[in-house]
Amino acid sequence: MRSTTARPANIHQARLLRLLRDLGPQSRVALGNQVELSRSKLAFEIDRLLETGLVVPDGLAASRGGRRSHNVRIAPSLRFLGVDIGATSVDVAVTNAELNVLGHVTEPLDVRDGPVAVFERVLALVGKLREAGSAEHFDGAGIGVPGPVRFPEGVPIAPPIMPGWDGFPVREAMSQELGCPVLVDNDVNLLALGEQQAGVARSVPDFLCVKLGTGIGCGIVVGGGVHRGVTGSAGDIGHIQLDPDGPRCACGKTGCLEAYFGGNALVRDATALARSGRSAELAGRLESAGRLTPEDVSAAAAAGDAAALDLVRRGGRRTGQVIAGLVSFFNPGLVVIGGGLTGLGHNLLASIRTQVYRQSPPLATGNLPIVLGQVAGVVGAARLISDHIFSPP
Amino acid sequence: MRSTTARPANIHQARLLRLLRDLGPQSRVALGNQVELSRSKLAFEIDRLLETGLVVPDGLAASRGGRRSHNVRIAPSLRFLGVDIGATSVDVAVTNAELNVLGHVTEPLDVRDGPVAVFERVLALVGKLREAGSAEHFDGAGIGVPGPVRFPEGVPIAPPIMPGWDGFPVREAMSQELGCPVLVDNDVNLLALGEQQAGVARSVPDFLCVKLGTGIGCGIVVGGGVHRGVTGSAGDIGHIQLDPDGPRCACGKTGCLEAYFGGNALVRDATALARSGRSAELAGRLESAGRLTPEDVSAAAAAGDAAALDLVRRGGRRTGQVIAGLVSFFNPGLVVIGGGLTGLGHNLLASIRTQVYRQSPPLATGNLPIVLGQVAGVVGAARLISDHIFSPP
Repeated sequence: MRSTTARPANIHQARLLRLLRDLGPQSRVALGNQVELSRSKLAFEIDRLLETGLVVPDGLAASRGGRRSHNVRIAPSLRFLGVDIGATSVDVAVTNAELNVLGHVTEPLDVRDGPVAVFERVLALVGKLREAGSAEHFDGAGIGVPGPVRFPEGVPIAPPIMPGWDGFPVREAMSQELGCPVLVDNDVNLLALGEQQAGVARSVPDFLCVKLGTGIGCGIVVGGGVHRGVTGSAGDIGHIQLDPDGPRCACGKTGCLEAYFGGNALVRDATALARSGRSAELAGRLESAGRLTPEDVSAAAAAGDAAALDLVRRGGRRTGQVIAGLVSFFNPGLVVIGGGLTGLGHNLLASIRTQVYRQSPPLATGNLPIVLGQVAGVVGAARLISDHIFSPP
Repeated sequence: MRSTTARPANIHQARLLRLLRDLGPQSRVALGNQVELSRSKLAFEIDRLLETGLVVPDGLAASRGGRRSHNVRIAPSLRFLGVDIGATSVDVAVTNAELNVLGHVTEPLDVRDGPVAVFERVLALVGKLREAGSAEHFDGAGIGVPGPVRFPEGVPIAPPIMPGWDGFPVREAMSQELGCPVLVDNDVNLLALGEQQAGVARSVPDFLCVKLGTGIGCGIVVGGGVHRGVTGSAGDIGHIQLDPDGPRCACGKTGCLEAYFGGNALVRDATALARSGRSAELAGRLESAGRLTPEDVSAAAAAGDAAALDLVRRGGRRTGQVIAGLVSFFNPGLVVIGGGLTGLGHNLLASIRTQVYRQSPPLATGNLPIVLGQVAGVVGAARLISDHIFSPP
C-alpha cells in the first residue's frame, strides 16, 4: 500500500486524463485537437500532470516539421480493481489506467452467504491477483452488486436477492480493506459502463443495457451518463408485471418478468420439461447431473431439442415485450443484451428483436440495433472508479 | 415587427437572465449569491445586459448598509408566444419574460385539418391577442404539437393522429410568419416544462409528466432537461401494448393503452354504456347532445353514475399498469398526471396510484408523489423558447 494517488487539479486536467485513458498515448498536438484550450494553457496543464506523475512522457511524437515533441501517456503504474458480484459468481479483475485487463479471476459464489463471507472471498481473489503480479497497490476500485444501491454512500438498499446485505456499508468497508477510493453500483450499471468503455456502445450517448441472469435488470445511459433514479432503483425491470395471473415471483408479487424468465424460472421450467418427458435432451442432463442450469438449456437448444428451443423463444418473447415498452418510452439509440443467459444465443436475440420490432413504434425502431453485449462488468467497474479518480476536485 | 432581440453574449449572462426570469427583480447582491462570479465580473456582466436592454433597473434595493444599489429585472417589454396545438383544440398565450401569462385564448380545432388550416387559425388568434394589447411583437415562440417532432429542425415526423403534418416545416414556416425565433416540440414535453417552470415539478430534477387526452404521452425530465430520445419519439407510451388480444388501436396494432383509454376509446366505451342502458346518466347526455365527450363521462362520474365511475376506474387501472412499469424502469422523483382527461378527477388519480403502489417496487414508490398537473402547456412553450433565447451563443 502507498500514499494517496494524485488527482487532477481542475476540469481541464480531468478531461485530459480521460482522453488519455480512452485514446492511449497521444502527442500534445493530438490532445490539443480534442480540447478547447489555448496552446500555452494546454502545455501548462500537461506539465502539471507530468509533475504529479499522473502522466508520463512516452517517446517522441512523429515529426510534423519544427521541433519534435514528446508523446504523453497516462501513468502505466496506475491500477484499478473491478469486482462484479453476481447472484451465483464473482469476477475480479485488475486493469491499468487505460482499462486494459491485466489479470482476471472468476469463481462460483452465493451472494446469499452475506457480505462478510463474500468479501472474504473477494479479498482472497484480490490476493491471488496480487501474487500473480497484476498489481501491488490499487488507485481505486469499483464494485458491482446484484441489487439497488444508494450510490453516494455505496450501500445496498433492500436488495431482494441479497439477504443480509441491506444497509451494509460496502463502500466504506472495502475502501478500508483495500486502502483506496471505492465506488459501489448496481451490476447492470457496470455492464452498461463496460459496453460504453470498450464494447458495442462506444459513442452511443443514449442506450439501454439489459442484463439477463439470475435476476433481470437494465442499465440506462442518458447523455453519456448512467441514470440511477432518485433512490438508486432505476432499471429494475425484472419486476415489471406481465400478467397479474402469472407465476409467483420471489419478490412476493405475481407475473413479473423474472418469474417467467429469470435464471431460477428457466431452471424450474427446464426441470419440468425434463420430468414430463417432453425433452429427452434435458431429461438426460438432469439424470446425469442431478440438477439443471441455464447452460443445460442453452446446450439442449443448440443440440436442436425442440422443447428447449421453445423455452428460450418464449422467454425471449416475454423479455421482448418488456423491452418494447421501454423502447416506446425511452427511444434509445441502442439496446444491448448481456448477462449470463446470453449463452442462450441467437434464438434468444431473434425472439427479443421480433417482439420489439413488432410492438414498438416504427419511428423508435427504424434505426435501432438490438445486439448482444461483448464486455464484462468488471471493465465497467474499473471505468466507474476511473471516472471518479479522473474528476476535478 | 422590430429588429432582432438582443441575446446574451456568454454563459454568465444567460444564467443571469434565467435567474431573473425565474426569481423576478433582484438586487445585485442577491444575484451574486446565486452565481459563482467575482463581484467585479458580476457588475461587468450586469452592465453589459443593461446596455443591451435585456435587463433594466428596477428601483433601489433595500439598504444593507453602505451605498444602496439598484435592483435589476428582466426587460418588461419582452414577449414570448406559446402555442399548444392539441388533437381537438388549440391554446395560444402571450407571456412576458418572467413567463407570466398576459393573454390567453383557446378554441376547438381539429388537428386533422392539416398544418395550413391550423396555422391560419393560430395566426388569427395571435392577431386577436395583439389587438387586445398583450403584445406588439414577439421575441420568440414555442409551439407544441400532438406527435413526435424532429426537434432540431422543428418538423413533425410520422405523427399518427396528425394526417398531413408529416415533414411540414413548422419551425421555419412559423418563424417567417411571426418574425421571431421558433422552437417546436411534442405537446407532452411542453406540459412537463410548464410544470417545471410554474407547477408541481419546480426543483424536481427527474420526473415524468403523463398526458391523458385524445392521445396519451409522457414527458420525461432527466437532470432538469427534457429527454426526447434519438428520433424524438421518447414518451410515446400510448402505444405500449397491454394485451395482444385487446381492442384495435388507430395505430394499426392491438391492445395499446390508447385503444383502452385514449379520448376516443373513452367516448366509444361511454357511448356503448349509454346505448346498452347500463348508464342512465350517459344515456340522457347522449340523447340530448347526439354524441358524448370525455367531459360527459366526467360529469356522469361526478354525479355518482356507477357505470361511468367504473369506466374511469378501469381506465385509471390500465394507465397505472403502464406507469408502474415506467416507475420500475425510471425511478422518478415525481409523476404528474395532466391533459384533458384529468377532468375525470380524483377517481382517476386514485386508480392510477393504487396500481403503481401495488406493482412497482417499494424502493421506487416509497417517496413517490403522483399528483395532478397545474399548468397549461402554453407556459411550457414559453419556457422552451425562453431557454433558447437566454442561451449563450
